[in-house]
Amino acid sequence: MAEQKGKQSAGGKDNNKITSRAENYSDWYLDIVHRAGLAENSDVRGCMVIKPQGYALWEKMQLGLDGMFKETGHRNAYFPLFIPKSYFAKEEQMAEGFAKECAVVTHYRLKSDPTHGIIVDPEAKLEEELIIRPTSETIIWNTYRNWIQSYRDLPILINQWANVVRWEMRTRLFLRTAEFLWQEGHTAHATQIEAEQETQQMVDIYRRFAEEWMAMPVLVGPKSEGQKFPGAVYTLCIEAMMQDGRALQAGTSHFLGQNFAKAFDVTFQNEKAQREHPWATSWGVSTRLIGGLIMTHSDDTGLVLPPRLAPIQVVIVPLGKNETERAPVIEAAKQLQQTLRSLPRQEFFGYQSIQAVIDDDYQKSPGFRFAEWELRGIPVRVEIGPKDMENKTCVLARRDQPGKEGKQMGIPLTGAADAIVGLLHQIQTNLFERAKKFRDSNLFYADTYDDFKKQIESPGFIWAHWDGTRETEEKIAEETKATIRCIPFNRPSEPGKCMVTGKPSAGRVIFARSY
Amino acid sequence: MAEQKGKQSAGGKDNNKITSRAENYSDWYLDIVHRAGLAENSDVRGCMVIKPQGYALWEKMQLGLDGMFKETGHRNAYFPLFIPKSYFAKEEQMAEGFAKECAVVTHYRLKSDPTHGIIVDPEAKLEEELIIRPTSETIIWNTYRNWIQSYRDLPILINQWANVVRWEMRTRLFLRTAEFLWQEGHTAHATQIEAEQETQQMVDIYRRFAEEWMAMPVLVGPKSEGQKFPGAVYTLCIEAMMQDGRALQAGTSHFLGQNFAKAFDVTFQNEKAQREHPWATSWGVSTRLIGGLIMTHSDDTGLVLPPRLAPIQVVIVPLGKNETERAPVIEAAKQLQQTLRSLPRQEFFGYQSIQAVIDDDYQKSPGFRFAEWELRGIPVRVEIGPKDMENKTCVLARRDQPGKEGKQMGIPLTGAADAIVGLLHQIQTNLFERAKKFRDSNLFYADTYDDFKKQIESPGFIWAHWDGTRETEEKIAEETKATIRCIPFNRPSEPGKCMVTGKPSAGRVIFARSY
Repeated sequence: MAEQKGKQSAGGKDNNKITSRAENYSDWYLDIVHRAGLAENSDVRGCMVIKPQGYALWEKMQLGLDGMFKETGHRNAYFPLFIPKSYFAKEEQMAEGFAKECAVVTHYRLKSDPTHGIIVDPEAKLEEELIIRPTSETIIWNTYRNWIQSYRDLPILINQWANVVRWEMRTRLFLRTAEFLWQEGHTAHATQIEAEQETQQMVDIYRRFAEEWMAMPVLVGPKSEGQKFPGAVYTLCIEAMMQDGRALQAGTSHFLGQNFAKAFDVTFQNEKAQREHPWATSWGVSTRLIGGLIMTHSDDTGLVLPPRLAPIQVVIVPLGKNETERAPVIEAAKQLQQTLRSLPRQEFFGYQSIQAVIDDDYQKSPGFRFAEWELRGIPVRVEIGPKDMENKTCVLARRDQPGKEGKQMGIPLTGAADAIVGLLHQIQTNLFERAKKFRDSNLFYADTYDDFKKQIESPGFIWAHWDGTRETEEKIAEETKATIRCIPFNRPSEPGKCMVTGKPSAGRVIFARSY
Repeated sequence: MAEQKGKQSAGGKDNNKITSRAENYSDWYLDIVHRAGLAENSDVRGCMVIKPQGYALWEKMQLGLDGMFKETGHRNAYFPLFIPKSYFAKEEQMAEGFAKECAVVTHYRLKSDPTHGIIVDPEAKLEEELIIRPTSETIIWNTYRNWIQSYRDLPILINQWANVVRWEMRTRLFLRTAEFLWQEGHTAHATQIEAEQETQQMVDIYRRFAEEWMAMPVLVGPKSEGQKFPGAVYTLCIEAMMQDGRALQAGTSHFLGQNFAKAFDVTFQNEKAQREHPWATSWGVSTRLIGGLIMTHSDDTGLVLPPRLAPIQVVIVPLGKNETERAPVIEAAKQLQQTLRSLPRQEFFGYQSIQAVIDDDYQKSPGFRFAEWELRGIPVRVEIGPKDMENKTCVLARRDQPGKEGKQMGIPLTGAADAIVGLLHQIQTNLFERAKKFRDSNLFYADTYDDFKKQIESPGFIWAHWDGTRETEEKIAEETKATIRCIPFNRPSEPGKCMVTGKPSAGRVIFARSY
């Protein structure tokens, strides 16, 4: 099909140039999203169109995550889009947390009107309004009531891939939209300890996915009370640093205690024939991860994709001035493409075959073709020219190291497929290491509130002491726009004093401005 | 996880017995859906919960279909759930066709009310109401307007996996629900002939999927004017016969002409620098296919799954009276499970590994365990008992041939994995042949309207002559509840006279009562 190269630009600027990160980080982000053909705003307020290149990334993310969910015994299911208003109201904290951003269905029919055309039929009003799910705890726990009678029915380990709606007022492609795609896991357990282990297991799966597939290093640990999911006892999260030093909450895993079981009157008979409420978890990641992926690796030339998530891993660009030069290089390109596709399927690539495209559009200059594929983030480019053909070799260029330093010349064509696979593995590792180095070099310490206020004006995360209260957290947020992102599991044991109140603190926590 | 075995029964009957098809076909269907743990009604009117076993079938269907879509150059994307009412009204036929079954969002916020609890905030009324998509032609063609400028932007070959809502008044699990899951392809082409070829290609992909994956034979051809999609120039369909002789529309591919391009003002510059409207197709299948799958193959013992769609292909049941007898057979079962999982991945299984489960729940009798897995439709059961172990053999039992005739004794354990794979292929073929034989033996002919009226009271499809008018079609539908299901491409060339009006007919068409 014809490629959609994103005709929209972030502003009214030159369509062929990406804004640099230094110039305007926010425009840079939108330029990448548009120019790499990932997504665009729709005419429906706050809703995005995920374009083929963006959706292919989401499919790869689903592949990686779904595999890990199933390896740990979870199965997928599907629950209704609609939540009756009365269910919604049953868990108070959650109802309060989401009430302000709910899309509400009130009618079920349109009709023709002689003067106004098609109108909503006033006679087709629902007895009870339906909320479009912003998250599915309520409808799912209402269903679990019928599924759970005995300890033998537990655990229930279910995940759902779905769309959800949260009526956000200020939206930004992938990062915050009224409708988005996600997965939401909802589990029920006979014991508290088992549910807490599940909460921990799932945040660890998110960490592994972020680090091993997205090559995005994350901090892992609980959220503060002020930042947890409404309805949760506590929330564990993975938190990443974007290239502008701001934080992105990339995934959350909630221990819900017995809150939803109680709200929906779900009980089971335990082994001693006593009735108990089961224990719950829920956990989710969304298309927001695509925003995180972009802001972790991409550069001023365009998108940079880690090989495990790249829908196309390799572009082969045959060169040559005329038909005589071109015919053999195109033939070699096709052979290499076929060899790559036929390699044994590796777990690393989610057991999919390696996808290589050939760009033989000779109407465009080599430089122009190179730039287009760099913009789209293809991890490895193979160049084959007439001189390479004489030597039966090719050139490999890495997207993560643009320019000469990332080029390997004289790779024998016979071994090129293996060399490419090796390079793809190397690029994956390099992207992670580079992002981790960046993140670690932007972790700062502040011991006084004055230092903190100065430091927070620069990019990066800040380790600081806090007294553990919601009041202090809110005061800091109001005064500095920084929030507590995470209380990392692996933080050093270092008691101290709150930088604001001077009260005792058990250890530093991570503050940052966030998306 | 604990298996959800479906505690609901269709009526108030014995929970452990499936109603037979002869007794009550409709109850039989619902018993299978419930007892095999495929789906259940939710508390939200007309919406179903797709349970893990049902959703796993949908995932397998997605795997097969998505592969074929991508092989033919299509890519997935995602468009908004919401359609502004004004877009909806732009294509008149479509608006009329769907107006009566639209869920409408009118508000975007809830609030707390001191007397009524949580209420819809009357101040948060949308300026323009949003329709939950019943199908996405309008929102997608509104988007394509910006994507299509030149013939170089064509074709656009896009598919979307999504949920849709049609407010049906009488619902039945999988077959007709208010919300369902589906895929919808939406393509744009520079020429009429290319769009018509696409329409044809996609119905052929549906035929192949139905026949090669679902083992469900289908008739292929256009719908009559009265049965086509509102907004289409014509609709091609695949039509299947269920075991009660009724028809199920299983997939449709629409040639939309320039209707949506004109309604949404989409034009492109052709190679001669003239502006033209592009040509469109759309095509879809839904979770309704799961209903079709059940009603094509299942029997009075439970679900019967074709191996290509079975999420679990094999159940291994170790036998033995005591620990001494059991230990070695369980060990052999584990080895066989591992061998099956490690076999080279075949295209036949969508490049997934073969899944075998071991049922070593010795608290249940062998017969009880066999029955449970027969209910769930697992294609092959492997029995390993102490005597088998002595001979290093096992017994293979086919789900498609319950009882002794489907058992193969004395299969050497060393070659069991290969024998099982061979058997899975055989079962796939057998299920298709059997269903085709059933379908073909229930195709009848009627030459007079009286014969037709008699014949239509018995199960099956009827080949009959019809004068090609909508009036006659409607008269027949009113008087007999039978509709024209398909005008098969491969119908014999046999001019005749309409059974109702005596006017000339170009050939017989297929009539049936349908789901």
